[in-house]
Amino acid sequence: MIKIGIVGGTGYTGVELLRLLATHPQASLQVITSRSEAGTPVADLFGNLRGHVDIPFTAPDSASLAACDLVFFATPNGTAMKRVPELLAAGVRVIDLAADFRLRDPAEWAQWYGMPHACPELLAEAVYGLPEVNREAIRGARLVANPGCYPTAATLGLLPLVEAGLVDNQTLVADCKSGVSGAGRGASVGTLMAEVNESFKAYAVPGHRHLPEISQNLGEAAGGRVGLTFVPHLLPMTRGIHATLYARGVADVDLQALFEQRYAGEPFVDVLPAGSHPETRTVRGVNHCRIAVHRPQGGDTVVVLSVIDNLTKGAAGQAVQNMNLMFGLDEAAGLGQVALLP
Amino acid sequence: MIKIGIVGGTGYTGVELLRLLATHPQASLQVITSRSEAGTPVADLFGNLRGHVDIPFTAPDSASLAACDLVFFATPNGTAMKRVPELLAAGVRVIDLAADFRLRDPAEWAQWYGMPHACPELLAEAVYGLPEVNREAIRGARLVANPGCYPTAATLGLLPLVEAGLVDNQTLVADCKSGVSGAGRGASVGTLMAEVNESFKAYAVPGHRHLPEISQNLGEAAGGRVGLTFVPHLLPMTRGIHATLYARGVADVDLQALFEQRYAGEPFVDVLPAGSHPETRTVRGVNHCRIAVHRPQGGDTVVVLSVIDNLTKGAAGQAVQNMNLMFGLDEAAGLGQVALLP
Amino acid sequence: MIKIGIVGGTGYTGVELLRLLATHPQASLQVITSRSEAGTPVADLFGNLRGHVDIPFTAPDSASLAACDLVFFATPNGTAMKRVPELLAAGVRVIDLAADFRLRDPAEWAQWYGMPHACPELLAEAVYGLPEVNREAIRGARLVANPGCYPTAATLGLLPLVEAGLVDNQTLVADCKSGVSGAGRGASVGTLMAEVNESFKAYAVPGHRHLPEISQNLGEAAGGRVGLTFVPHLLPMTRGIHATLYARGVADVDLQALFEQRYAGEPFVDVLPAGSHPETRTVRGVNHCRIAVHRPQGGDTVVVLSVIDNLTKGAAGQAVQNMNLMFGLDEAAGLGQVALLP
Amino acid sequence: MIKIGIVGGTGYTGVELLRLLATHPQASLQVITSRSEAGTPVADLFGNLRGHVDIPFTAPDSASLAACDLVFFATPNGTAMKRVPELLAAGVRVIDLAADFRLRDPAEWAQWYGMPHACPELLAEAVYGLPEVNREAIRGARLVANPGCYPTAATLGLLPLVEAGLVDNQTLVADCKSGVSGAGRGASVGTLMAEVNESFKAYAVPGHRHLPEISQNLGEAAGGRVGLTFVPHLLPMTRGIHATLYARGVADVDLQALFEQRYAGEPFVDVLPAGSHPETRTVRGVNHCRIAVHRPQGGDTVVVLSVIDNLTKGAAGQAVQNMNLMFGLDEAAGLGQVALLP
Repeated sequence: MIKIGIVGGTGYTGVELLRLLATHPQASLQVITSRSEAGTPVADLFGNLRGHVDIPFTAPDSASLAACDLVFFATPNGTAMKRVPELLAAGVRVIDLAADFRLRDPAEWAQWYGMPHACPELLAEAVYGLPEVNREAIRGARLVANPGCYPTAATLGLLPLVEAGLVDNQTLVADCKSGVSGAGRGASVGTLMAEVNESFKAYAVPGHRHLPEISQNLGEAAGGRVGLTFVPHLLPMTRGIHATLYARGVADVDLQALFEQRYAGEPFVDVLPAGSHPETRTVRGVNHCRIAVHRPQGGDTVVVLSVIDNLTKGAAGQAVQNMNLMFGLDEAAGLGQVALLP
Repeated sequence: MIKIGIVGGTGYTGVELLRLLATHPQASLQVITSRSEAGTPVADLFGNLRGHVDIPFTAPDSASLAACDLVFFATPNGTAMKRVPELLAAGVRVIDLAADFRLRDPAEWAQWYGMPHACPELLAEAVYGLPEVNREAIRGARLVANPGCYPTAATLGLLPLVEAGLVDNQTLVADCKSGVSGAGRGASVGTLMAEVNESFKAYAVPGHRHLPEISQNLGEAAGGRVGLTFVPHLLPMTRGIHATLYARGVADVDLQALFEQRYAGEPFVDVLPAGSHPETRTVRGVNHCRIAVHRPQGGDTVVVLSVIDNLTKGAAGQAVQNMNLMFGLDEAAGLGQVALLP
Repeated sequence: MIKIGIVGGTGYTGVELLRLLATHPQASLQVITSRSEAGTPVADLFGNLRGHVDIPFTAPDSASLAACDLVFFATPNGTAMKRVPELLAAGVRVIDLAADFRLRDPAEWAQWYGMPHACPELLAEAVYGLPEVNREAIRGARLVANPGCYPTAATLGLLPLVEAGLVDNQTLVADCKSGVSGAGRGASVGTLMAEVNESFKAYAVPGHRHLPEISQNLGEAAGGRVGLTFVPHLLPMTRGIHATLYARGVADVDLQALFEQRYAGEPFVDVLPAGSHPETRTVRGVNHCRIAVHRPQGGDTVVVLSVIDNLTKGAAGQAVQNMNLMFGLDEAAGLGQVALLP
Repeated sequence: MIKIGIVGGTGYTGVELLRLLATHPQASLQVITSRSEAGTPVADLFGNLRGHVDIPFTAPDSASLAACDLVFFATPNGTAMKRVPELLAAGVRVIDLAADFRLRDPAEWAQWYGMPHACPELLAEAVYGLPEVNREAIRGARLVANPGCYPTAATLGLLPLVEAGLVDNQTLVADCKSGVSGAGRGASVGTLMAEVNESFKAYAVPGHRHLPEISQNLGEAAGGRVGLTFVPHLLPMTRGIHATLYARGVADVDLQALFEQRYAGEPFVDVLPAGSHPETRTVRGVNHCRIAVHRPQGGDTVVVLSVIDNLTKGAAGQAVQNMNLMFGLDEAAGLGQVALLP
């Protein structure tokens, strides 16, 4: 059994991680920390965990974390980078679900996250935890940067086109829509039910932190800088991301075959039959990304539709997938759930 | 492995049954019938089942059903009663998720369901599939009548009080609220998103078919006829039932202890700590019933709050629980999921 | 034109008041105060008011309020009672949308609201602003206590029965369900979209502040103390209250006629035809209460269904109705909207 | 008073038209037809109209319609074109809320709508009812083709750019999201609450009927054929459209000023301050289109955000605006409501 610690388990990625680890055959949850909820049984905060998780939150404590094989950080941006070096030094492996180790360039990180990076020397070592790109590197990693939710959906959708050099890489568009759980469990007027329900809006059009992350992913696939317009929107629902992706100048190839071949054998990427329109509910609570590819009206624009659950493949599920790789388990261990529909 | 057939799998109880059976360690789905969708792969209709269920719907066929160990009926009321005698004769055991075998009195059944019963001789044999009441009988049953969703929530909530004779049995009130999936997957104006969303209403106040079923359950517990007012309401959400139950004239006993003792050892009834208010989301997609008991203002009225997922403990999950009992498996086999929250 | 001030206009009752006053033929909005938003144009905070309200929030200021004919308090409980005496002394009339002047007994107020009352001497003068009960007193009032949302729905539903002495007044039940806007616009985890959506729960079963208010209303109608069990619930939607009301021992009278006669001529109470089930959406954004009365299965229990919009008849709309009465206008002035459906 | 008839009033555009006409100062509703609901009081079907509309539906009848000044068709596509010639001949003016007269080319109409056009000779006369483009022609029109919902939102958003020739017209993208009321009030599995709620998907990516309509509008503005990729999506909510519009190669101009000048004086187009993100709820139930324009990261792509209520500016509200123009009334008569927020 893998001895596991979680730092910061009171948010939505935390409870999702707990949901998945509670039934994982190889995971043994040792410690879960929360400064604000220390002493509270986890199941008192999250009623769905009654009967599944029986430990309380504890105050952050280096010794108990250092005794783990693996520590997940489900903390706000900027927290993990202060604690990770010490844990690595103690021989603990780390998966950070926040953004601290996602961008390779510390200057770019500082620009988008508004603070200097606390351990830039680790950025080169950190492996970006998208198994469909970095599977082998993840297996051997000490430190995995778990991808953002939008970047997961957008990258997986555009990757086959960009890798193959089949589209104009300078005019990519990612029109993305996310359920409100992506905004976290913090008290805030903007995510109140009465504010979000029965309404829809774009946000952060001038620039969102996931823009450099998606650009970095696609740039690596393209072997050079790409041009991307990224517009995120807030959906009046809880879970799910839908990325509608546009690329121009597409070559005259069999797009369906391209996608099917790229993702053949991938346990968590499902290329739908031609003509499909994936629904976010078909991935609710599961680690799959479902993708459909279209060429409307036979023109030179390709439209890719890519859906994930932002808390699962977009966060905690992908983290468990990375854990499985890091510890030599079946990549799908503990991730065999069927999506809840309806 | 138990060889399983499902009759009528295109509704919400059908897809929920498929979700649960797909990961059940002892279930082998042999056949699923649908007249209208014969030939369609199940996973084309329900995208969440891609990769989990790879058989198509087939037209109803006696031979293939007769070769099963167990057949579930997830059909409209009045269908199972026409097909069950033949299956029982062929040695197949049956769980009916509809109402055909729930009421003991064929005249009462005919009154509420608007048609004569097709096999009244089986009503005495059929076991009402509420394990918390009829566990032993279910184990040996050939034919199980799976309880209705409202009756499950209301009965489990009132049972400890009525069994113990602690309240006035003539003035019970069950104010129940259900998500819209309880109304089924049939095309209808009344359950359109634009009709149901952002609105709330009671329905069937003059009389709902679950009234005689709840009354029968409580009458058996009380050892005599009870008086019950039952008002169902439609919630603007998909899954979940919340029963708010009122009983008067409550004796001066420790209600919390009464409930905890009644359900001690029950794998799927969770009595919450005193002072709790269960949320339907804590049972989303799982087979649990969570219950809290209150005596507001120290008066003589007891208020019980009881929540289930109408498709799981209120339908397909309880059916799997009954299957486990009938076939000597661990009662919780295949039902170990953690509720999806948020 | 009536010169109007609003104290505390950044919450949902505030924006609803602004929506209604913006098109009211006799209202002239002079000042709207908010300590936190002073200087911000009202329409920057509430985009629906662009083109309708062009003044900014200002810091609370006695002089500008004292120059008004009428001041509405849309503030948290406990604020109005500190400011009202001064305004009354200046000749300004006041409608308080919070609870400060709703209970006649200052000791009971202190018990439920957790602080001593700041001006108990005004409690006798304050008129409870339910026009269907106190119309004449409201016309002459200096100070109106605008009713709570649950009390409005529950009182209007039970009033005909209790006034006529037709039911057992000691065993009343009010099972009430409210949209989340009733919880206000303050940042809080409990009312986040991801917490409330697709879930349902009761709350405050041991005791809710609206219990003594409803009891007071019904006690005055009955001419003596009543016994009431009140259970509020949170609906996964924004606007609307549905009260399901139970009374036992109902006499053998024509209940439909009783309700129709009680509310004949009332501009904002709509008794639906026999057999109806009112939907909250039919009162969305309007000042009406729609009521249906049932006697299920011909028994001795009467079930009343009563719906309002918690922000309109349950708050700002009723406040405008009271304003119309106080200033001798048509009672329905500015309240002629048709509910938004779907 | 304008004598008004409505053909086909049982859908969502019908009830929205009734809501608006019920409080319109110059409209007198004479007749509303429905074959299926003939004899039913309108307010029995739509409870929000109780007290506002007291006539019943009647069977379609030429004489009563011919006695009107204006007839609205709120019917499925293909109905109006069979009835309009007779009404025009009788001197009645017509506004068709369906698509029968929107496309100028009958061959294109037949291709997209799957039937030959019944009166192609009227296509040249019919005026496309987008007042921001065709105001003067609408004033004199006998027959107005009321625009589609997506075309209204997308056209108003792109118009200033295309008219001014400031962007590459061959690579336009309209990523549009609509609430489910746009799919109508017909019984259908795909728009059930339990199918739509808590999910999101694109649909009709290969080709949607609004594509030729938007292309026609933009082509006329550009003075030549445009290239457009249009992807519609279904939102888990009832009302509202959000168009996210992308245009490349934008010239170095002040986009904010361009939009403000184009729509200066327009009563129903509201250009938001620079940096804004319009929310659909700010136009809920009102006839406004709110627009924001962005140039993310200072690049050569312009992103326009355009929101309307699909039933109001996208259907019935715009129809009333057109009626006002046709009959010489204040263009905003009866359209002064404030959006319902929250």
